[in-house]
Amino acid sequence: MTSISPLAPAAFPEMPPVAGVRFATAAAGIRYAGRTDVLLAVFDPGTVVAGVFTQSKCPSAPVDWCRAHIKGGSASALVVNSGNANAFTGKSGRSATELTAAIAAKAASCKADKVFLASTGVIGEPLDATKFEGVMARLVADAAPGGWEAAATTIMTTDTFPKGAAAMVRFGGTAVTICGIAKGAGMIAPDMGTMLSFVFTDAPIAPAVLRKLLHEGVEDTFNAVTIDGDTSTSDTLLVFATGAAASRGVAKIASPADPRLAAFRKGFNAVLADLSEQVARDGEGARKLVEIIVEGAKSRTSARRIARSIANSPLVKTAIAGEDANWGRVVMAVGKAGEPADRDRLSIWFGGIRVAHKGERDPSYDEAAVSAAMKKPEITLKVALGLGKGRDRVLTCDLTKEYVAINGDYRS
Amino acid sequence: MTSISPLAPAAFPEMPPVAGVRFATAAAGIRYAGRTDVLLAVFDPGTVVAGVFTQSKCPSAPVDWCRAHIKGGSASALVVNSGNANAFTGKSGRSATELTAAIAAKAASCKADKVFLASTGVIGEPLDATKFEGVMARLVADAAPGGWEAAATTIMTTDTFPKGAAAMVRFGGTAVTICGIAKGAGMIAPDMGTMLSFVFTDAPIAPAVLRKLLHEGVEDTFNAVTIDGDTSTSDTLLVFATGAAASRGVAKIASPADPRLAAFRKGFNAVLADLSEQVARDGEGARKLVEIIVEGAKSRTSARRIARSIANSPLVKTAIAGEDANWGRVVMAVGKAGEPADRDRLSIWFGGIRVAHKGERDPSYDEAAVSAAMKKPEITLKVALGLGKGRDRVLTCDLTKEYVAINGDYRS
Repeated sequence: MTSISPLAPAAFPEMPPVAGVRFATAAAGIRYAGRTDVLLAVFDPGTVVAGVFTQSKCPSAPVDWCRAHIKGGSASALVVNSGNANAFTGKSGRSATELTAAIAAKAASCKADKVFLASTGVIGEPLDATKFEGVMARLVADAAPGGWEAAATTIMTTDTFPKGAAAMVRFGGTAVTICGIAKGAGMIAPDMGTMLSFVFTDAPIAPAVLRKLLHEGVEDTFNAVTIDGDTSTSDTLLVFATGAAASRGVAKIASPADPRLAAFRKGFNAVLADLSEQVARDGEGARKLVEIIVEGAKSRTSARRIARSIANSPLVKTAIAGEDANWGRVVMAVGKAGEPADRDRLSIWFGGIRVAHKGERDPSYDEAAVSAAMKKPEITLKVALGLGKGRDRVLTCDLTKEYVAINGDYRS
Repeated sequence: MTSISPLAPAAFPEMPPVAGVRFATAAAGIRYAGRTDVLLAVFDPGTVVAGVFTQSKCPSAPVDWCRAHIKGGSASALVVNSGNANAFTGKSGRSATELTAAIAAKAASCKADKVFLASTGVIGEPLDATKFEGVMARLVADAAPGGWEAAATTIMTTDTFPKGAAAMVRFGGTAVTICGIAKGAGMIAPDMGTMLSFVFTDAPIAPAVLRKLLHEGVEDTFNAVTIDGDTSTSDTLLVFATGAAASRGVAKIASPADPRLAAFRKGFNAVLADLSEQVARDGEGARKLVEIIVEGAKSRTSARRIARSIANSPLVKTAIAGEDANWGRVVMAVGKAGEPADRDRLSIWFGGIRVAHKGERDPSYDEAAVSAAMKKPEITLKVALGLGKGRDRVLTCDLTKEYVAINGDYRS
């Protein structure tokens, strides 16, 4: 099959169990042969949940399901399948979510409206939820702490490696754990981060505080990653806080003003940043991880828009695939963003080397040094606009022939 | 080199001379060896001009030059070079435009501010305008009526075939002629049409009327074509009306209310439509010409935005390259457009065959029929939203490995 992305981490990280969460995986035969495709997570009573979802106007049935039930802020189980996105499946899609939740609720002895769902894979084909029936009782029986790599592997589609990240945060003498998994590959563009990601912590935390953390945390992580500018119908990021650390003496974080939040936020955001960077590292066909930094813009919003315009430009992305420091295409992408920009104040760096300055090729431009920088697997592309103090950063990858091959053959 | 696009017309069209315009081409050695790269057009006195230009915030020096001088509405000459776009070249870029215009003005005995300029090719490298000096006198001496194919060939960059189109319009017993050439290939996205195109007519027409015709005419032609969503810094469409037909008894079209304008507009728009379609047919690496029709949108603007979102989606374009009627990706692209859409009312057709209806796979979906339709070189993709009466149409092409190859190697 597809070889592992050259940008993949060396190994799946060591990740401790999160108290109050148990996992199991199974092969339900949704679409793929010879691999697991259903992930069940079972949560201890009292687990709270927050989520962010695709901005698509045509969301998948599981996204509709989660949106309808997340307001309660309480979760008992999570069911994720790969192979079929249950998107654009009309009434049968809604029935499939209802049936999946009912099957899981029955097996896990919980309420169906506390079962959260996500599906990823082909769009537009009915999901046969009865397939979950055959595996759910065993999933509930098998559910055990940890097992992160198996969980992350089960939710993969065209991903070439499983994605996990962990952080430990100390509250006084007691550690709480934050662990997450993600899947990405293609159809990744901001608003929100796109893809599926699930983050789990044993910190006791009020739903409103968790929601605030999540909404702030995605802004510079999942919302700052783009692979191809295409936004999935299924993008889902759910965070579950079991509160199990309360039994170890950790008092509940009930207010956004809680001084312990600073440390927790740091760990939480680090997990989101790590997972979202791994999504960029596994962009379909990616051979280069590209960090786009825009500074000197009129505002941060303007910097973000310009950075996205560069990151989504096929001409910039193919130039990087060709190891070509083609600053002319960067100028093009700045120009098409529609944001304030003055051609004659622009400076552009590839890999730390300034190639253009004040609207012209840098007089000290050294082709050999730039060529060497472009051969590296990780490239920072910086644009200074010279207009103001707005700065932002977006992660993306190059556009290769493999992207076209992967996406020209995916369905057949 | 690159083979000719399989979507190219069988031959360059027969195109009559336009009275009042003379052309010549030369090889000035701007960048390419063994081919012409400078086009000169010389106009009879009284020629009026109108233009539309890139919406890029970082336009090329020739675009700045044309914008500064087009308000006068009067033209004596046009100089176009390929090989170097004179974009993002700072002060030297401005000097190069001034020098080019001065050289042409001296050779053609006209004012420099009546010389219009366009450049296409690599961005960010200085254009050595002194190279025009060696060829300009001979260009003026050689200038002759007709020679459309040579003119269209000279302005090509990664284009695989020269693009020309012609129309004749009768005013009473007298014919006037409208002829145009264009170059395109990549970096083609609406606002405006992108690319270079030059249209010539011998109709006597007031500058204000010509401007109005042009601004209305591009909307459904050049502005409705997108190759890769990237907008060039150099996009220029100029139309020159020599008025030479006045000597054959055609009275001047001085008002937008002139009843003869309906026929003229029809011919003019047909030339723009033909040229812009040829640009789509020569999209870099294109193997399929794709017409996107969106109907039932809330408004025409909304339909256009959704059509563009589909046309610029890498996942839709790679699916079409793979001859895959992947309506799920079309739903994705509708959803990410941000325009009103109701998933459960959507219907989608590929090649006239309805594949999805009211938010689900069409019950009568016939895989074999759809597969046969997807193998054709020209594919119409229609989306019905079922919300209102807004309808629009955009032309694009598929995204192939050849696009990546062309754009990963272009500069080196």
